[in-house]
Amino acid sequence: MSLRERINAANEEALRRIVAADPVLVDVAPASEVIPGLRDRMILHSGPPVAWDRMCGAQRGAAIGMCLFEGWANDPAEAERLLNSGEIAQEPNHHHATVGPMAGTITRNMWVWVVENRAFGNRAFCRQVESFQQFGDYSAEALAALAKWRDIWGPALGAAVRKMGGLPLKPLVARALHMGDEMHNRVVASSSLFANAVAPVLVDCGLPKEQVLSTLYYTGNHPFLFLGLSMAAAKASMDPARGVEASTVVTAMARNGTEFGIQVSGLEGEWFTAPAPRVHGLLLPGWKEEDAGLDMGDSAITETVGWGGFAIGGAPGILAFTGGTAEQALAYSRDMRTISVGTSPDYLLPALNFEGTAVGIDIRKVVQTNTVPVIDTAIAHREPGHGIIGGGIVRPPLECFSRALARFSEKYQG
Amino acid sequence: MSLRERINAANEEALRRIVAADPVLVDVAPASEVIPGLRDRMILHSGPPVAWDRMCGAQRGAAIGMCLFEGWANDPAEAERLLNSGEIAQEPNHHHATVGPMAGTITRNMWVWVVENRAFGNRAFCRQVESFQQFGDYSAEALAALAKWRDIWGPALGAAVRKMGGLPLKPLVARALHMGDEMHNRVVASSSLFANAVAPVLVDCGLPKEQVLSTLYYTGNHPFLFLGLSMAAAKASMDPARGVEASTVVTAMARNGTEFGIQVSGLEGEWFTAPAPRVHGLLLPGWKEEDAGLDMGDSAITETVGWGGFAIGGAPGILAFTGGTAEQALAYSRDMRTISVGTSPDYLLPALNFEGTAVGIDIRKVVQTNTVPVIDTAIAHREPGHGIIGGGIVRPPLECFSRALARFSEKYQG
Repeated sequence: MSLRERINAANEEALRRIVAADPVLVDVAPASEVIPGLRDRMILHSGPPVAWDRMCGAQRGAAIGMCLFEGWANDPAEAERLLNSGEIAQEPNHHHATVGPMAGTITRNMWVWVVENRAFGNRAFCRQVESFQQFGDYSAEALAALAKWRDIWGPALGAAVRKMGGLPLKPLVARALHMGDEMHNRVVASSSLFANAVAPVLVDCGLPKEQVLSTLYYTGNHPFLFLGLSMAAAKASMDPARGVEASTVVTAMARNGTEFGIQVSGLEGEWFTAPAPRVHGLLLPGWKEEDAGLDMGDSAITETVGWGGFAIGGAPGILAFTGGTAEQALAYSRDMRTISVGTSPDYLLPALNFEGTAVGIDIRKVVQTNTVPVIDTAIAHREPGHGIIGGGIVRPPLECFSRALARFSEKYQG
Repeated sequence: MSLRERINAANEEALRRIVAADPVLVDVAPASEVIPGLRDRMILHSGPPVAWDRMCGAQRGAAIGMCLFEGWANDPAEAERLLNSGEIAQEPNHHHATVGPMAGTITRNMWVWVVENRAFGNRAFCRQVESFQQFGDYSAEALAALAKWRDIWGPALGAAVRKMGGLPLKPLVARALHMGDEMHNRVVASSSLFANAVAPVLVDCGLPKEQVLSTLYYTGNHPFLFLGLSMAAAKASMDPARGVEASTVVTAMARNGTEFGIQVSGLEGEWFTAPAPRVHGLLLPGWKEEDAGLDMGDSAITETVGWGGFAIGGAPGILAFTGGTAEQALAYSRDMRTISVGTSPDYLLPALNFEGTAVGIDIRKVVQTNTVPVIDTAIAHREPGHGIIGGGIVRPPLECFSRALARFSEKYQG
C-alpha cells in the first residue's frame, strides 16, 4: 500500500469515527469532580500552550478573574502577583478532554457541561458561555454571574439532566441546523430547543421554586446558552478520531489570542502553531479596530466537526453579528467541501438542498488548494478587563497546516 | 386626483396600517366568551361562505366532529342528520374577526387564542392547531385531543398569558423569521420561543403541578403550536386595512376546500371566488394523489400579511414538507415583491440580506403581471374522517383577482 493509499484509508477511518459520534449531555458538574487531571490552583485555558508572560490581555484578565472567583486572591493586584509568581499552574483545556469559549478559563469550582460520546465511551467538558468573564472582564458583576451559574443554574441543570437520563445532542443539533443555527456563534434555535427540553424536568425534580424559576428565565433567554453544549459535543465527537496512524485529518483548532494551533490525527500530541490572526467583522458601538485582540478560544472545535463556518450558509441570521452577505455565507460552506474528507449524513443544510455539512479537514487539501477553514468568532479586547466587543470571520494561518504537513512527511516518509 | 393616484394613495394607507400593526397575545379563552356573534349551535368554518351540501369532505368531517365535541349529537350518523336538517348555523370565521386552520371549525367550547392589535384596538381569534380534527377526523382520539386543549392546556395558557399582561408577537415573529420560520407551515422556531416565554409564568401562576407539567410538555413539543398564533396575529394585523376607499389591497385569502376566496380593502364585505385549486407537494406515506382534497383553510391570512410563501425563501427547512428547492423558495419570495405594495420594515429575511418581506397584495399587479401569490399549505383528505395527509405549494386561481378588479372598476369608475 502506498503512503497515499494509507493516508486515504486512515482519513476514511477518522471520518467514520467522527460521523459515528453520539454525543449525549449526561451531567452538569463542578470541574473538580469531572475533568481529568484538573488540580487545585490550576487554571485551564483555551488554545495551544502559552506561558503567562506571552498571554494576551483577555486571557490574562480572565485568569485574574478566576483567581478572584476561587478566592486565591482578594483583589486584582494580588491575583496578578500570584499569577506572576508561577504558583498557579496553567494548562490548555485540550490536554484535559475539555474546551472553553474565548479565554476558556476553567478552575475547580467552575461547573461544566459533561458530554458523553456513547458510540465510543469518551467524555468531554465545556464551561458555561457568558459575555464578560470569558472575555477578560474580572469586575464584581462578571464574577457574580459566574457565582450564579455555580450556585443556582449549574446545579439545577445538573439535577434535571441526570433525571432525564441524559439528553441526546445529535438530533437536537440536526434540528437546529434546520433552524438557522450553525452551532458556533449562532445557537439561538438550539438554545431554545434545549430550554424546551429541560423545562418540565426542572419543574419535576424537587428543587426550590425560586431556583426553578431563576433557571427557567436563564435557559429561556440566553442566546449563547447552547454554545457550551455544542463545543462539548464537538470535542466529544472529535476525540475518538485522534491518533489514527497516518491520518491527515485535523482533530482540533484552538487559539489562545497569541497563537493559533492545530492538532492532526496521525501526529497525536503535537501542536502546529502560528501567530494568531486578526478577526474581520463588526464591532459593538464604542469600540475601534485597534481595541480588538487577536483570534482566541477553543470554540473552533465546532468548525473541526463541520459546524460554524462550515455550516454558515444555512445560518444567514449570523451575518448581523459577523457582517458579510448571504451569498458569501453559502459560498463559504460550499468551499469547505474542497478541504474536507467527506460530508455528514446527519447534519444537513436545507439552504444547500439538505446536503450534509463538510467534515474532516484534511491538511493536504488545505495546503494543496491554499484554502484555509472559515471560522466565525467573537472578538475580545486586546487589554484585560473588558467583555465582548464584536464578532466576525477569521481564517487560520496557512503555516499551521503547512508545518503540520511537513512534520507529517518527516514522520511517515522519513 | 386621477383614479390611479387615488388608488396609489389608498394602497399606501392600507400598507401603513398593516405595517403599523402591533399584535399582542392577550388571552386564551372559550370561543363563546370572546368571538363576536358566535351563537350556540353555530359552527364557524374556514374560507368564503359555503352551503352544507357543497362543503368538501374534510370540512363535513370536521363539522361532524364539532357536533360530537359539543354534545349536540351522540354519534356521527346523528351529527350528519343534524347538519343536514339545517339546525346548526354555519358561517365563515372571517365574518367574526376569526380565522381557523384547514376546516377551521370553531364552536362555543373551543378555546381560542385572543390577539389584540394594540396599534388599532381590534381583536382577532384563532383556534388551536392540531393534525386530526381540523382535517376532518372525528374519531374519539381526535376529539379527546380537543378536550385536553379545552380542559388542561387552553386554561393554563390563558392564565399564564393574563399573568404576563400579554405577550407582544411582533418581536417574536421577527426573531423566528431569522430562525427559518415562515409563519405558515414552518413555525418550529416561533413555537419554541413561545414555549420558553410562557414556561416560567406557567410555573408561577398557582396551577396544579400536573396541569403545569402537561402544558409544558405540550408547548415544548408541538411543531405547529404557533400557527394558531401567527394566524390570529395576521388577522389582527390585516383587519384595520379593511374598508380603505379605493384601495386594491387584498385583506384576506381564504379557502373552504370547495372555493378559493379573496377580499379587497376597497370592496369591503364582498368575496371574489373561484373553484379551489389542487395543491402540489408531498404526500405522507400511504396516500395517493387521488386521495387529496382541494385547497382549504384560513391560514393564507399569513401570506396576506407577508409571511408564508412570501417569506419561504428564508425557511428552506419547510421544503421537507412541501417539496421544491432552496433556489425556488428564494425566487418565490423575490417574485412576491412584484405583486405587493411594499415591504415590511420589521419582518426581515436574512437569506435575502435582511430585506423586508413583501406586504400588501395589489390585485392590479396580480392581474397585470399574471403572477398570483405563492401559498404553502397542508393537504387534507377529500373524504371525511382523516387527519393530515401531506403538504405543498398552491397558487390561487387568477379569476379571484380578475373578478375583484372588474368589480373594482365597476364600483370606482362606474
